[in-house]
Amino acid sequence: MLVKGKPFRTIWLSDNKENTVSIIDQTRLPYEFVIKDINNYKDMAKAIKDMEVRGAGLIGAAGAFAMYLAVINDKSHINFLEEIAQEIKETRPTAVNLEWAVNRMLKCINTVSTYTEKCAKALSEAQLIADEDAEFGRKIGEAGLTLIEELSKKKKGDTVHILTHCNAGWLALVDYGTALAPIYAAHKNGLKVHVWVDETRPRNQGAFLTAWELAMADIPHTVITDNAGGILMQKGFVDMVIVGSDRTTYTGDVCNKIGTYLKALAAKDNNVPFYVAVYSSSIDWYTADGLKDIPIEERSDDEIRFIKGLDSNNSITEVCILPTSSPASNFAFDVTPARLVTALITERGICKPHDILNLFPEKKNI
Amino acid sequence: MLVKGKPFRTIWLSDNKENTVSIIDQTRLPYEFVIKDINNYKDMAKAIKDMEVRGAGLIGAAGAFAMYLAVINDKSHINFLEEIAQEIKETRPTAVNLEWAVNRMLKCINTVSTYTEKCAKALSEAQLIADEDAEFGRKIGEAGLTLIEELSKKKKGDTVHILTHCNAGWLALVDYGTALAPIYAAHKNGLKVHVWVDETRPRNQGAFLTAWELAMADIPHTVITDNAGGILMQKGFVDMVIVGSDRTTYTGDVCNKIGTYLKALAAKDNNVPFYVAVYSSSIDWYTADGLKDIPIEERSDDEIRFIKGLDSNNSITEVCILPTSSPASNFAFDVTPARLVTALITERGICKPHDILNLFPEKKNI
Repeated sequence: MLVKGKPFRTIWLSDNKENTVSIIDQTRLPYEFVIKDINNYKDMAKAIKDMEVRGAGLIGAAGAFAMYLAVINDKSHINFLEEIAQEIKETRPTAVNLEWAVNRMLKCINTVSTYTEKCAKALSEAQLIADEDAEFGRKIGEAGLTLIEELSKKKKGDTVHILTHCNAGWLALVDYGTALAPIYAAHKNGLKVHVWVDETRPRNQGAFLTAWELAMADIPHTVITDNAGGILMQKGFVDMVIVGSDRTTYTGDVCNKIGTYLKALAAKDNNVPFYVAVYSSSIDWYTADGLKDIPIEERSDDEIRFIKGLDSNNSITEVCILPTSSPASNFAFDVTPARLVTALITERGICKPHDILNLFPEKKNI
Repeated sequence: MLVKGKPFRTIWLSDNKENTVSIIDQTRLPYEFVIKDINNYKDMAKAIKDMEVRGAGLIGAAGAFAMYLAVINDKSHINFLEEIAQEIKETRPTAVNLEWAVNRMLKCINTVSTYTEKCAKALSEAQLIADEDAEFGRKIGEAGLTLIEELSKKKKGDTVHILTHCNAGWLALVDYGTALAPIYAAHKNGLKVHVWVDETRPRNQGAFLTAWELAMADIPHTVITDNAGGILMQKGFVDMVIVGSDRTTYTGDVCNKIGTYLKALAAKDNNVPFYVAVYSSSIDWYTADGLKDIPIEERSDDEIRFIKGLDSNNSITEVCILPTSSPASNFAFDVTPARLVTALITERGICKPHDILNLFPEKKNI
């Protein structure tokens, strides 16, 4: 997507140095647009852990490039690839893409025998994973566009109001995004849309990333607190909800950023359609009960305790927003049961949450 | 309640000056404990509007003391009391206590004729309103205690985990609080309790006030984001929810701080009892449909855009946490329909939300 007119992806092989991968450091947005060069797998693992790169699709691609960096920057790593893969996978335990991408890299690197071949294979596979991810986003955009078109027609061309939670835009993938992809497609097609952006505490990816993305694309949007979605739906100000997903069970349970479940409940209670944009590499083909069986990552309470913003001198400053004597607890995800999901928007089209396997029949027997 | 061992109310007539009313400036908590002396009604109206005093009960008492200050500090005000009352009532349109208290003061002041009598009457009535408010809190504590005792017994004395939203503690009333009053009573009675404190964006009254109150009272508590209540209930970590209410219709619809409705939905979905602590002066005896007929206050988007905290030098600093080009919208309340409320805890005991009139039969014919 464009940043001030120039096309960007969220991760790419550096133009000049073949052992270097570039990322946008997303912890600096929206205040600074910083590109960071990474040339060893440990730094990429740290970038994933510290959420400099985040979002289901992007951490898959970042995990793949981390494996590539492990191979390219030290020949001896070849003997410890299993351990390195494990180390990378453990940086974010909830999202399924990371595990999927790292395992795919591992398998692929092992299909060839010489070091030179392994380097070439690791690079081509990481790039393929990134390209596929971007293409998935584009296709989800196409599929979701039909839903917005329908609502727009029903409203006789009036603005379609869409609520989203967290960031599932192009910054969360390699390009295009999942939840925002249909919105970008609708805007490009001249439909009137307006996006309610949940700020998404504690890390404020809605306010910091989604609002920034939409502003860059000139799409009308309004930031709201995570508490506000309920009253907006009660008042009829929301026509549809679209969110992303970090892991979706093959039965349609959706594990996504903490707070998603509360919006799904409100949507159900107010007859607002609730869509989840999801692509196949983030589907968990082995888990049937999302609530029981998906591990929910608990992150440092510092994410709740401290927040960064611009002070009156326009400097990025971190402030503490809890009484020092009060503990805090920081679950990063919740699970929206399939019964609350109107439909999934996938790279193969739209389906009811319990119908995923019909859209991906090749997964029926795994 | 005690602040570092010394008993305080949230509003009181100054010891030394009869035309001065003291408040705790709640916008400075949790970082500073600042007492502010106010000696004219306009400053008290501003303190209400700027939320230096806030909470259903306290703004009623503050409105009453504002009327007293209007009378005592300028004899000519006697001729404009209706207009002044209107001015005070308009500072916060949603809460019903403010209107109720100001109207009660107006009526009462008009029952006597000389200026001296009006001054004395205004003072005694404002103090009576404050005393009644504190007493309501104490009684709600007694009533709610029975619910916590029941759960404690069911858990064989194990910790009862209670989730609360915003601040409905003693800082929200003149003393004791509503939602926190049963928790204070339980703690005093030696029951094991632990409180999940929603931080309550945008103004963070949970993190800033409720957590501060509970820390002062040595009650175990954990601050969470507003997004987290859902997963905690899904995982069985919440035994009950208790919240306050800014306005409750006589049919049991609860208008409270934005985000309350989302917690009520999650409680319903997970069979967690959802209680609302409410006292009669915050009940709207004229409105049947909360969602349709209660005006929802929209506040400045600066409340979302800026947040105050302690910087690395321990100075209170305000930072901007939105991209400058993104607009924000700030509804302050939502409405939890009676169907989601397990029971109300009132100063006359506990009742089903649709049974309020049976507990307050004298209100049946108004």
